Formats: sequence, structure tokens, C-alpha cells
Amino acid sequence: MATGPDTLPELHPVPGIRLGTVSAGIKTAGRRDLVLVEAAPGTRCAAVFTRNAFCAAPVTVAREHLAACAGQPRYLLVNTGNANAGTGQAGIDDARTCARAVAQQAAVEAAAVLPFSTGVIGEPLPVQPIVDALPAAYDALREDGWAAAAAGIMTTDTRPKGSSVRFECAGRHYTVTGIAKGAGMIRPNMATMLAYLATDAAVHADVLQAMLRRAVELSFNRITVDGDTSTNDACVLLATGAAGNAELARQEGALYAALSEALLAVCVDLATGLVRDGEGASKFVTVQVNGGASEQECLDVAFTIAHSPLVKTALFASDPNWGRVLAAIGRAGIDDLDVARVALFLNEVLIAEGGCRAASYSEEQGVAAMAPEDIVLRVELGRGDAAATVWTSDFSYDYVKINAEYRT
Amino acid sequence: MATGPDTLPELHPVPGIRLGTVSAGIKTAGRRDLVLVEAAPGTRCAAVFTRNAFCAAPVTVAREHLAACAGQPRYLLVNTGNANAGTGQAGIDDARTCARAVAQQAAVEAAAVLPFSTGVIGEPLPVQPIVDALPAAYDALREDGWAAAAAGIMTTDTRPKGSSVRFECAGRHYTVTGIAKGAGMIRPNMATMLAYLATDAAVHADVLQAMLRRAVELSFNRITVDGDTSTNDACVLLATGAAGNAELARQEGALYAALSEALLAVCVDLATGLVRDGEGASKFVTVQVNGGASEQECLDVAFTIAHSPLVKTALFASDPNWGRVLAAIGRAGIDDLDVARVALFLNEVLIAEGGCRAASYSEEQGVAAMAPEDIVLRVELGRGDAAATVWTSDFSYDYVKINAEYRT
Repeated sequence: MATGPDTLPELHPVPGIRLGTVSAGIKTAGRRDLVLVEAAPGTRCAAVFTRNAFCAAPVTVAREHLAACAGQPRYLLVNTGNANAGTGQAGIDDARTCARAVAQQAAVEAAAVLPFSTGVIGEPLPVQPIVDALPAAYDALREDGWAAAAAGIMTTDTRPKGSSVRFECAGRHYTVTGIAKGAGMIRPNMATMLAYLATDAAVHADVLQAMLRRAVELSFNRITVDGDTSTNDACVLLATGAAGNAELARQEGALYAALSEALLAVCVDLATGLVRDGEGASKFVTVQVNGGASEQECLDVAFTIAHSPLVKTALFASDPNWGRVLAAIGRAGIDDLDVARVALFLNEVLIAEGGCRAASYSEEQGVAAMAPEDIVLRVELGRGDAAATVWTSDFSYDYVKINAEYRT
Repeated sequence: MATGPDTLPELHPVPGIRLGTVSAGIKTAGRRDLVLVEAAPGTRCAAVFTRNAFCAAPVTVAREHLAACAGQPRYLLVNTGNANAGTGQAGIDDARTCARAVAQQAAVEAAAVLPFSTGVIGEPLPVQPIVDALPAAYDALREDGWAAAAAGIMTTDTRPKGSSVRFECAGRHYTVTGIAKGAGMIRPNMATMLAYLATDAAVHADVLQAMLRRAVELSFNRITVDGDTSTNDACVLLATGAAGNAELARQEGALYAALSEALLAVCVDLATGLVRDGEGASKFVTVQVNGGASEQECLDVAFTIAHSPLVKTALFASDPNWGRVLAAIGRAGIDDLDVARVALFLNEVLIAEGGCRAASYSEEQGVAAMAPEDIVLRVELGRGDAAATVWTSDFSYDYVKINAEYRT
């Protein structure tokens, strides 16, 4: 199951970036499971990795190589079907072997190759099939390879995710294009999520990293499917400079604003796309918390709601069970929460205020508001000006049967 | 579904306590949904309530009355079928009305009656049927009414939970008996959980409260089914003094030790019983974390594992997916966790160490270890002497289908 449209939008090529997607037969014969991304010389790279202490071998190696190549990698190698996680030193060696093979073929330093893996944890990476498939991947490199790559990085995803924005600034045209994969283990601080973004703008390394961090914070770190954080998450942003602008070296000005906005739009598009394709998702839920004393408490409330299995099963059942939402708000750990000031809206229908059902509310209104696939749960805390939004999906299937049939 | 034996053990009467269970027809005609508990004059009462900011009306009233009667209530009134939560001022009035009706019938102060409710949130409490059923409840009061009361407080529970311990100290015999209900919304800091405990020991109010807090901390606050905390939780401990001992006024000595031990045993028995009857439970899982630098970090690791839907679905599938457990440990937020020192045991089979699968481990061993209904997941952190244990159930049904068929 998944929500929303399942058509991939047009993904504009980014001058300086070529992508090749082929089958290495890692887990399933014939499955296109290997993606090679090539960046033109001089391309800057920013990256954000999982915070899981048990990070996968390719994460360790990619971090090392990114530092060793001074933030200017030439190739990204992504395999699905095997996460190369929980594989100890052998896994590190395997990731290095793959990176070296790419480097040899392309005549670059090994440190200029960043490896990424996603799939089963704890199985040895099948190195030889990957190495054997590299010549074909190299031959397949093309500027319009984004859509094939979006499909190539999928695991339990039911559809590819991509997003692309073009904008003009001071008479020059720019592109930001990205692809991502997700499905399970989706939650803040990166998940079983790989995202590859590129722009043709020329951007200083520090500015690029800051832009990526901000965009990830407001997109990928604000989604949750099942509360788990994976060992393999990575989000990479390449800036080729092929647009020919003077390098963007400060976090200010028209280009900075326009590029930040485009990058954030692409990231939010990809992140919400991950939620729409969350495992078992039948609803797309925006949890919007306003009127908090701080952004953090708004996030605490929003994530407590978004993680609650009882709320999520009610959403699946299209049951306007506002009591479960109030209960989630009440246990979010907000100091001195005055429940009398809290109001709850469901797709703009006021359903609860003052700690109980709104006088104006009828069950029919609630049922009607819950019917659409897209649901906005808005909480007004009534204690300040801060706000935060997170996106989540429902919990579907039989866990629901029990919770949907009995209203606790 | 539920795990373990479904027979209620013998529940020894507690001299000074009588219980009456009748049908008030609150939600389902004929269902025995109203329990009245009578405590002899002079009985001390300790209580722990939900920390949810949206606490239910009866919780507010019970707290008030407990203070107003100087910790010596004479009656507890418990209804199922309606939680009287999210009902605002009307709910408070309703809870007070019910308490007054009991008081009138029994010729005691209204403050000597503590009301409790569990069931649907957000619906008005049907006061009249409850009041009408009180004479029958009063007539039904009997010392051996524990088993009927255990059934009477059930909601989505599939079986009643009770536990009873007798012990001797300095030639005198004592009893601790308790009943509880749970099912969904089970997690630390009290849940959709009601528990009523009694002993015939004479205990000073402060000692009684301290004993209850400790016992709750090590039992009900160490279980989780779905991570939700309800608005109605309460755990009450009555001490009638009918055993005739000199009042236990200090947290020391043989009686203190024996009574604490008995109380903890009853609470752990009830708490694990709640997990065994968790909504959809097919496994009973003990998560034991040893070798931590502090008890808190052991609890953080244990609850991160116990809350992980990916771990819980693997448990349902009897899949020894140790990678998911390592991933949960890795995101528990432990500072400077050295993954090389972490070891993971599944029913005493070493499955992972040094950040990867143990050399001695075979998948067949893991499958065999996962087969029993009762699973012990033991984590050795290798960084200190602290330890903590929590209990949980699996996530069963179709959410599993997706996660069990693909090993992320």
C-alpha cells in the first residue's frame, strides 16, 4: 500500500552528473541493484550520515573517503539487496574493495569513491558480483539516468521517489534534482534511507554542508513510519558548479535564498514521498503543532502523536478517536501543560478543546474529516509562538483490528 | 492471543477487604462491569496515578478524595466500559456523583470513596446505571470476591489477572493479594492499567507509599506493549492492619523486607501477566540489559529494543534478526557506546558480539532459540555493573507480514 500519486515526476538532468544503473544479481537475478553516480571533477559534496552507533561498514568507509578526498568525490556506488551492516572488519574490507574497483576502472583515487549499501543486515557483501558489474555500470553512465537510478536504489519501496526543481537567479538557470529510497525504519535522525541530491550551482563546501543540514533537519528528520533508525542512512548533496556562477561562499543573498528554497522543496518532496510509501501506509498524515513555547516542545508533541500505535491504528480505521490524540499530547512530557488551552483540529474541523470534545463537534463531522487519504492533525498548544510539522503514515492491518474495534 | 497459562491462581482473601462485582450495563448488557471494594475502618491507602497531563476525571477526583480522607478511604468504585476521560467538568461532576452515591449508601464521607474508570475515552459516563447498581454491589461484598473483581475490571483483556502471596514473619501470618487489568496502552509510567493490591499488615502511610512506589517502579513501569500511556492509570495499595502487627513505621527490619518482597512479587506477577495478555501478544519477551554504566542507560537500551516495531515483528515471526536488535541498541542514545564490547544473547545463545554475528553462531541455533513462547533477549554492554530488565510482547498480524518477509 502507498498513498498519493505513484508517477515519478520529470527529473531534470544536472550538468556534471551522470548515473548508471545495472544488475549485479546481488539478491535477485536480473534486478537492477547497482547504481554508479559520476560527478565531474571539482564537484563539491556535503553529506549527512546515520547517528546509529552500529553504523554500517559503507557508512564508515564513505565518511573516511569523503574526508580523504577533501569533500570532492568523483563516484558514488550504491548497492541494494545487502546492507553490509553488522559485518565487522570483513564488511569494512569489502566496502573498500568495491571502492577500489571503481577507482581502478575510472582511474581516480580510491578515496574519491563513496560506497553505500542498503538491504539485509548481517550477511557478507557479495563483492565479486558487484565488481564484475562495474564495467557495465560505467558504460551505462548518462546525464538522464536519474529515473533508472531512483528505481535502482529501491528495497521494499513500492515506487521510486524523485524530485526536481529548476529556478532562475540573476539571469542564470539552476537545477536541483534528487532521488531517495525508504520504506521501513523511517524516523528522525535519518532512517533506512538513502538520498542523493545534486545541483549545478557552484557552492563553497561549508555553505553546501550547512544548506544540506538545514534541509535534512526540516524534511527527512521530520518524518516517521515505525520509529526505527537504521544503520545505513545517508543523504548526499553534490554541487557540480556547471552552471558557471561565481562560487556561493556565504549564507546570504538571492542565490543562497533561491537555492536553499529549491533544495528544501526537493527534500520535503522526497521525505513526504518516503512516508507516502511507508510500509503498509494507507494514510498520509501531517501533524502540525502550533502555539508552543519552543520548537522542541512542538516537535516532542508532534512525534509523540506520530509514533503512537493507538493514534496510527485509529487513523487507519478512519476513526476520529481524538481521545487517543489527547492522551498522546498529555504524555509528551511538556512542563505545566494547561490542557484547558489545548485545541485539536482534524482537517480543519475543531474536534476537541478545553480537555474535552468541542461543543460544536459531531461524530459525523469527524468521520467526514477522516475519510480522505491525506489527513492534517493540527494541535494548538496555546502557550507561545513556536511551531513544528512532522509527517507520518498510519499503522494498517491486523494490529488495527484489535485497536480499531475497541475504542480505549 | 495471549501467552502463558490462562488460569487465575488462588487469590487469598485479605482480612479487612471485601469486594462486590455486579452488572450495571454500562456498555454491554449483562456484562459484570462494576466493582466495589470495601476497606475496614483504619485501612491505610497508598496510590500511584498516571502522569498523563490529560488525566481522566476519576483520577482527579480520586487524588482529591485520597488527600481529603487523610489516606484512609473506605471504598473504591471501579467501572469498565467508559473511561470518563476527555469529558471536562461534566466528567468531574459525574465522578463526584458516583462517589457521593456510594458514600450515601455506606454512610461514610464522600471523600472516603475513590472512583476509577476504564474504557472508551470521550463519552459521558452513564451515571444513573452505575448509581442504580450500587445496592447490588454493596450486597455482593465478600472477602473472597477477588476473582470476580479481577474479571470485573477487564476491558480488552482476554483473561483476568491476579496474584497472591502469603508469608510468615515473627510468628505472624500475612497476605498480599492483587488484581490488575491492562491490554493496550501499556508502557512505562503507568498505562491503561488499573491495579488494586491489599495486605492485612499494619503499615504507616509514608512507608506504604514508599513500598508501593518502589514496587511499581520495578514492575508496572518496566513493561510495554505498544508504547502508549493512558489517561486513567492507577495502582492502589490498601493495608488493613487486620494481621494485628505493631504498625510498620520504618523502611527496615524483617517485616519490611518480607512485605516488600511479597508486594514486589505480586506486582511483577501482575505486570508480566499484563504483558502476556497484551493486545495480539504471541511471545513473552524479557529484555535484560547488563553491564551498563548506569541503570538509566540499561533502561534506555531495554526500552528502545522493547519499543522497536521491527524487533517486535521479528519476534512474532520467530526470526532471529539480531541486526534489528543491534540497530535498536545503536540508536538508544548511549554516549560513547563501544559496539565492539556489546554482546547479544537469545535464550542464552550468543548471537552477536564485536558488532557482528558471533563466530560460533549458526542460523539453526537462532531459529531453535526463537521457537519458544518465552524469549529472553540479553544484552551485555560491557561498560559497567548496572543492569535493568523490562518485559514486552511482540507485534503480531499483518504489520508483520511486511517486516517478517523482508529482513531489512
